[in-house]
Amino acid sequence: MEFSQLIKSRYSVRAYRPDPVSEDKLNRILEAARLAPTAANRQPFRLLVIKVRGREEELKRLYPRDWFIQAPLVIGIVTLPEAAWKRRDGKNYADVDATIAMDHLILAAANEGLGTCWIGAFDPAVAREIFSLPPGVEPLAFTPLGYPADSPSPKKRKDLEELVCYERWKA
Amino acid sequence: MEFSQLIKSRYSVRAYRPDPVSEDKLNRILEAARLAPTAANRQPFRLLVIKVRGREEELKRLYPRDWFIQAPLVIGIVTLPEAAWKRRDGKNYADVDATIAMDHLILAAANEGLGTCWIGAFDPAVAREIFSLPPGVEPLAFTPLGYPADSPSPKKRKDLEELVCYERWKA
Repeated sequence: MEFSQLIKSRYSVRAYRPDPVSEDKLNRILEAARLAPTAANRQPFRLLVIKVRGREEELKRLYPRDWFIQAPLVIGIVTLPEAAWKRRDGKNYADVDATIAMDHLILAAANEGLGTCWIGAFDPAVAREIFSLPPGVEPLAFTPLGYPADSPSPKKRKDLEELVCYERWKA
Repeated sequence: MEFSQLIKSRYSVRAYRPDPVSEDKLNRILEAARLAPTAANRQPFRLLVIKVRGREEELKRLYPRDWFIQAPLVIGIVTLPEAAWKRRDGKNYADVDATIAMDHLILAAANEGLGTCWIGAFDPAVAREIFSLPPGVEPLAFTPLGYPADSPSPKKRKDLEELVCYERWKA
């Protein structure tokens, strides 16, 4: 899909059909994340691909919404802060890098006719437990991946005048 | 451009022509950032649109590369962490939100035939000074915005096997 149409059509899908996602589609979506740019090309993220069937109880502890386990797959992204580039003042760019990759993945899914929903409100301790994340591996976001069973609502966003400053900060 | 083609064609542009960017193109690019999803729809980011002409010396202090001031515009993104959604363990998602918006902007620029380059290696103290950023407003990334005067190199990325774990963490 043309990019400007794609970002209009992507929405936070909160109901899914159980239909399978083909391996071809899944691979194209993962490839989109792989192509994402990262600071100093460190690529300090890893993707988790999780089959929902058989793990419903664990996943409901991670994020207790019925729609979270309706799709056949859940995708997670974790960061590796120790491998990431750091700014001169010490700020670590792992979250930035992983977010670019996840945004590519989410847009690629929409481009394949698949639904996703950025989820930050998961339980990080449960993520650590059920995916065996060792110290130094930090869960950042999850999404279901499957065919939408709902419809988009109009996007509510601030006006550009509120979001854009010209030349310098203006509150 | 079709999305899968767009993410292949985007690259870190490190030489720019001085040709102006039309207001139409700039507005479509800013609009792409505006449409980005953010945690709990808080939209805790602001975009800075900076005309390079006349500010070359300041901008070279921000990021001392000749190509940083070749394009007619520099775009910055700042976060508002106090306005952002926080995870139950206190983790602040302002960087995630701002990165999604910036990724939309960067892809929208490529879709308009314009070049960009994610820059995290700027001097944050200089950013604070030259853009009058008050406490609580955090600079996250900058990019030139203009027509490319260089050509892409092939992307070097880890293989998918290294970036993807199935079902649980695997080092």
